Amino acid sequence: MGHPISQPDWKPAPPAQVEYIPESQVLFIENGQDSAVGDDFAEHIIVHYDNDDVAAPASLAAIRIDNAEYVLKPFVDAILAKYGVSLDAIQTPKSVKSKSGVILQTIVNDPGDFSYVIGPYKQPVATVSPGETFVVETADAFENRITSPDDDITKIITLPYVNPLTGPIYVEGAEKGDTLAVTIHSIEVTRDYGVSALIPEFGGLCGTVFTRTLNPPLPPRVMLHPISNGEITFSDDLDIAAIPYEPFYGTIGTAPELEAISSLAPGFHGGNMDAADVCPGNTIHLPVNAPGALLHIGDGHAAQGDAEVCGVATEIPTRGILTVDLIKGQAIATPRVESDDFLMTVGSARPMEDAARIAFYELVMWLESAYGIERLTAYQLCSQVARVRLANMVDILYSVVAKFPKRYLPRS
Amino acid sequence: MGHPISQPDWKPAPPAQVEYIPESQVLFIENGQDSAVGDDFAEHIIVHYDNDDVAAPASLAAIRIDNAEYVLKPFVDAILAKYGVSLDAIQTPKSVKSKSGVILQTIVNDPGDFSYVIGPYKQPVATVSPGETFVVETADAFENRITSPDDDITKIITLPYVNPLTGPIYVEGAEKGDTLAVTIHSIEVTRDYGVSALIPEFGGLCGTVFTRTLNPPLPPRVMLHPISNGEITFSDDLDIAAIPYEPFYGTIGTAPELEAISSLAPGFHGGNMDAADVCPGNTIHLPVNAPGALLHIGDGHAAQGDAEVCGVATEIPTRGILTVDLIKGQAIATPRVESDDFLMTVGSARPMEDAARIAFYELVMWLESAYGIERLTAYQLCSQVARVRLANMVDILYSVVAKFPKRYLPRS
Amino acid sequence: MGHPISQPDWKPAPPAQVEYIPESQVLFIENGQDSAVGDDFAEHIIVHYDNDDVAAPASLAAIRIDNAEYVLKPFVDAILAKYGVSLDAIQTPKSVKSKSGVILQTIVNDPGDFSYVIGPYKQPVATVSPGETFVVETADAFENRITSPDDDITKIITLPYVNPLTGPIYVEGAEKGDTLAVTIHSIEVTRDYGVSALIPEFGGLCGTVFTRTLNPPLPPRVMLHPISNGEITFSDDLDIAAIPYEPFYGTIGTAPELEAISSLAPGFHGGNMDAADVCPGNTIHLPVNAPGALLHIGDGHAAQGDAEVCGVATEIPTRGILTVDLIKGQAIATPRVESDDFLMTVGSARPMEDAARIAFYELVMWLESAYGIERLTAYQLCSQVARVRLANMVDILYSVVAKFPKRYLPRS
Amino acid sequence: MGHPISQPDWKPAPPAQVEYIPESQVLFIENGQDSAVGDDFAEHIIVHYDNDDVAAPASLAAIRIDNAEYVLKPFVDAILAKYGVSLDAIQTPKSVKSKSGVILQTIVNDPGDFSYVIGPYKQPVATVSPGETFVVETADAFENRITSPDDDITKIITLPYVNPLTGPIYVEGAEKGDTLAVTIHSIEVTRDYGVSALIPEFGGLCGTVFTRTLNPPLPPRVMLHPISNGEITFSDDLDIAAIPYEPFYGTIGTAPELEAISSLAPGFHGGNMDAADVCPGNTIHLPVNAPGALLHIGDGHAAQGDAEVCGVATEIPTRGILTVDLIKGQAIATPRVESDDFLMTVGSARPMEDAARIAFYELVMWLESAYGIERLTAYQLCSQVARVRLANMVDILYSVVAKFPKRYLPRS
Repeated sequence: MGHPISQPDWKPAPPAQVEYIPESQVLFIENGQDSAVGDDFAEHIIVHYDNDDVAAPASLAAIRIDNAEYVLKPFVDAILAKYGVSLDAIQTPKSVKSKSGVILQTIVNDPGDFSYVIGPYKQPVATVSPGETFVVETADAFENRITSPDDDITKIITLPYVNPLTGPIYVEGAEKGDTLAVTIHSIEVTRDYGVSALIPEFGGLCGTVFTRTLNPPLPPRVMLHPISNGEITFSDDLDIAAIPYEPFYGTIGTAPELEAISSLAPGFHGGNMDAADVCPGNTIHLPVNAPGALLHIGDGHAAQGDAEVCGVATEIPTRGILTVDLIKGQAIATPRVESDDFLMTVGSARPMEDAARIAFYELVMWLESAYGIERLTAYQLCSQVARVRLANMVDILYSVVAKFPKRYLPRS
Repeated sequence: MGHPISQPDWKPAPPAQVEYIPESQVLFIENGQDSAVGDDFAEHIIVHYDNDDVAAPASLAAIRIDNAEYVLKPFVDAILAKYGVSLDAIQTPKSVKSKSGVILQTIVNDPGDFSYVIGPYKQPVATVSPGETFVVETADAFENRITSPDDDITKIITLPYVNPLTGPIYVEGAEKGDTLAVTIHSIEVTRDYGVSALIPEFGGLCGTVFTRTLNPPLPPRVMLHPISNGEITFSDDLDIAAIPYEPFYGTIGTAPELEAISSLAPGFHGGNMDAADVCPGNTIHLPVNAPGALLHIGDGHAAQGDAEVCGVATEIPTRGILTVDLIKGQAIATPRVESDDFLMTVGSARPMEDAARIAFYELVMWLESAYGIERLTAYQLCSQVARVRLANMVDILYSVVAKFPKRYLPRS
Repeated sequence: MGHPISQPDWKPAPPAQVEYIPESQVLFIENGQDSAVGDDFAEHIIVHYDNDDVAAPASLAAIRIDNAEYVLKPFVDAILAKYGVSLDAIQTPKSVKSKSGVILQTIVNDPGDFSYVIGPYKQPVATVSPGETFVVETADAFENRITSPDDDITKIITLPYVNPLTGPIYVEGAEKGDTLAVTIHSIEVTRDYGVSALIPEFGGLCGTVFTRTLNPPLPPRVMLHPISNGEITFSDDLDIAAIPYEPFYGTIGTAPELEAISSLAPGFHGGNMDAADVCPGNTIHLPVNAPGALLHIGDGHAAQGDAEVCGVATEIPTRGILTVDLIKGQAIATPRVESDDFLMTVGSARPMEDAARIAFYELVMWLESAYGIERLTAYQLCSQVARVRLANMVDILYSVVAKFPKRYLPRS
Repeated sequence: MGHPISQPDWKPAPPAQVEYIPESQVLFIENGQDSAVGDDFAEHIIVHYDNDDVAAPASLAAIRIDNAEYVLKPFVDAILAKYGVSLDAIQTPKSVKSKSGVILQTIVNDPGDFSYVIGPYKQPVATVSPGETFVVETADAFENRITSPDDDITKIITLPYVNPLTGPIYVEGAEKGDTLAVTIHSIEVTRDYGVSALIPEFGGLCGTVFTRTLNPPLPPRVMLHPISNGEITFSDDLDIAAIPYEPFYGTIGTAPELEAISSLAPGFHGGNMDAADVCPGNTIHLPVNAPGALLHIGDGHAAQGDAEVCGVATEIPTRGILTVDLIKGQAIATPRVESDDFLMTVGSARPMEDAARIAFYELVMWLESAYGIERLTAYQLCSQVARVRLANMVDILYSVVAKFPKRYLPRS
């Protein structure tokens, strides 16, 4: 019969006008010296091609890298790998210039206009095209408002205005029943420290608003963790080894058809999974249920233990580079992640065993539908070789990642 | 700092223009005979007062009851009780007329415009004032589309367009931090049968989208249950006693501040609790988080077992009479229900023990804050005298009702 | 192949030598006056028949009731009802004598020799025959060691020596695959107070050894609740209505084949279900898995709220009268309870939804196998009419009782 | 007061008479050639010392390795490491002989006399001393009765006689309140294939006896997985890479004080955790609750995926070499595992989040008590760096391993 559900009132913006200068001929990747030619490029990254066909450039001509040392490397590697060249010679590209180029659009919500739900009701902040690479900037889970270990976390958190997301990002052509593929090239921290905290009535080892107890709550606590040179210092008071900077997005999701889901919740739409596999180098598949997919991203983590047991990771604001693609007419039930080594599915539910059931069920079904391993055989095979990440045991739903090592995919 | 969250675009309608004829002087409750005086009254119910002050009428003058035999009785009783008179003499008021009256507004969504989420984004379908009594009409959980046991339930259900709700109903003056009190006077079934069904991958004793299993699903099945004379016939094939008509709303809730929650889900906002205590005679307290509270009601049940184990009760379209009141500046965390005999709190969560924890925690806190029983004493007392209803074990969250018998409230 | 599992070393005692005096001819139930005839009867209860055939007495001749006022009444009623007479005339039988009779055996463990596990390894303390009525005495859950509200519960509880059980009771002829039916006639409190307590890290609304939290624990606390005239006084400090004395056994179970299960745990074997339906008037069916069934009973409660939320009911020592019967060759998966009004099944598991699933699954299967209601129809019917008791949310497993009202059993 | 609980009737055997030949002077580790000197050594392994003091040998003189190629290597490495020498030269010791030696005792239950519960009631099959190294042989979870993919798993499994354990092993001097440390040196498979299976109503993605559903069950299925050269062939029908042989014990535990726990269940006592960290090179700490600790071991796995999702790993019979040690007067609440890289704690519970809570709570407490990291700081630190293994989602309780990387232990 059709459901004339009142549509949201917004219209997506037209796609970003990416600045493309076709006469681009020469490009330099010069390390450690200024080869400026007077151009005033947009910051962050500019990719140059040696012909006019942006959609299918014959070969890469050059690349500009600016103030984005290590975080860009995977992305640059990825681009160069496409063209069969390597970046070995470039250790620390301090200043790389070019005469012209295509400039990536940078997507960020205005201050005070972040999204705190993932749903179809808010005007998109940007539009991207399938295949487009773009920059996303995110605030940290506390809206960058913690600047000192003396800050009172209980005052800073004003529910439901926690875990601000960048988005919605409208993806042209995305319709219910498609799958959105988001490849993360890099996640750069845009501050010199991360934040973690104890939040009363929140966390894996205390009474919460769900696991309601009469016990006195734990005290609030804030820690700042300095980040530099790809390393995190947990604490000056505790002499322990530095923690490597291994960034990922705690939250990435697409809008449901009718629901608007708290940015604190993970689910079939993705959301606040806190899964460290949502990281540079990996591709995240998300279901499309609303026109334009309406991608939301946030909750950058510089590091996180499995389970995120106290409820807070090393929270950071970020600048990341992503590419979106669209798989038309192919629906998925729950988020999938693919890395070089693993096929991964994410289940989010309570109790935790239901999260694991969803993840493994989807993994088994994926092995059957895409790789021809009959489902009960796949089930039995997973029982021998699968890996699991407990992503979070603290959020509105728990998230479990089931992983199938690609080395055990059928060879013929 | 304030969060300039983009407001929904709708404006609530002005309050309903209730038709009030002040010269009302004489009223009749006549049983079994036509005392028509030529007026053309609105259908259903008309309450007459013997003075002009609707807000605080000195005394009830008369009442018109029309085609609403048994379902109206509790309501009429309630009104008459206020005035110290009884309705004993009126057994079957077939036709009762009056010269004039106040006419209750009837709230119902247009066909095809039901609400399938409870949230702040949809234009309210009506506005009511605190203290106002009104009529609500609801479709059944399948949008009244099942008319035969041969209907294919899997074709009728098109997620997320299941469990249509009437609403949003805007309550004047309701603001975040208030509590909405909804008293249910009567729930009338507006069809001569109820519907129950087995829905594959839904229910308490089968694999579901959460408790994901590889087992073959159960078959779909539809049953129609004739309803007449306050009794439900389960099946013509099975010779069992009739089931009494004991109606309630499976779903009643108010909008969260930002989230739009599926009409299939219960939660802190109320929603699809499937608690048989949301029934005539009881008052439901719901938290107000959005301006106007935005009350949604639906999912009428003619009867339901505790736990609603197969996922479906005796589903009916309804016409009910309710009064809303507003408790300003007093917030509650989770729905409360009060009957003559019980104080009740509803917890909705997974796993089920968390639902029970929420319900009991809130019950204990209520006993402390409103009745002065120190919380640990209340905890220990509940362990001796509390009652529990397992409302549902099938919905997106399970709902548990913790009940404190009012006879054990302190006498001094 | 057979498993020559080393058998327990004990041998059951021979059946109790019940004293039967066949010449019994005359019996008196005399109220309020001494009609002693010089006999020295065993205490508690003596049933006299007017012929020699104990197994099938033609009619009841008389009954002696001694120091067992109200608690015996249901039992006496039951016996008299069999013979079509009533006990109305006997209000307070203070001294009723008879010339001779069959004396019930009284089963109780020696002090310091209670059972703290339900298993096949301990020497039975008594043997009973199918059909035999006997008396069981139990200590309270704290081994009757709490005598003052100032007692330190944390010192009194020395795990695993908590919840002492009377038993094992060896039932002659019981073999794996049978079902044991235990009918409870009466449960008498043998002390003038009950005990409840708050036990740190135990209970429904606090962190526990399973739901481990870092929160500070709740304080220990002990309350004594005076019991007299069938009423319980919760507290002298809180002026609330008396709580009726509604006794039941918190723990009743039979031994598994190999496991020895803590007396604190419920399960498929029964055990510490804390289900108020294990009460006088009802018959409990338990699976037989070890030779002799090995019945264990304890944990008398004078009153208990659904869920037993703080973990402790009104704990009492008891003297009860029970009859055991044996259903040969008919196995059940989980405990069943039958009352005048309900068929009941008990599921014990974590999370709580699994307890509910077990209970309802078994209820549906019972309706199919014993009453011919096809299982999916029974499932759908339960969804309309079943009732549920949340028995406990505090024990090692949670227990849920699913109840089918017998009035809805097929009439033909 | 003391609880004169009836003691088990058995007495532990005296410690094994290890055969020690003091004149041992010369030892050879010869690779690939026979240097036999006519002795007839016990099979498996013989360690030779160069003096008579077995308890504290001054230095290792030699070692005999026989038919135990790769599996022994970690053990030999460990022994040689103690003495500062390396085994680099020995690639494949085919025949290494010596004149005399200390022979390790080999512990195995008689066929038909395995343990199916972990409890204090069964006569120990062997006694070991703290510090002793010994050999344990185990049958596979199906008692080695599956020899063909055509075997009917439903006939082979006769509950409760599944998952046979070797033991009880009595550890001299172990008393309640101690901790038992079991170091695993090697686990050798003693058959050329492993077995996996689908067992109806058992597994992570189907209805079970706990998660009771009315769905039709999955079909039974058996697979044999050839093992050779340290590799497992999953299936001849599916062309996938070989799975490396990474053996561990699915089940290892000590007896509770009174309970006898199914060999299928994990818990605070260890038991059927199915944690792949119980592997060669690691040390397992288990609580001692019964005299002699009463160690039980079994359920060898040649490989297993995290979660053991279908309920069955690559099940094998094994021969392992272990050393036990005793930490007197130091109790632990739940099993701990230590490897070169991780401190690990195991939580077993349902729902799964409770298993994770137990594991993390104990990990946090361990970091505080042994390494001086204040508990809330440890909690916050774990949230940044901890790792988690989901050991099983199929057993009577789920098991989760929380892991703290030792590289983050305080350096000062």
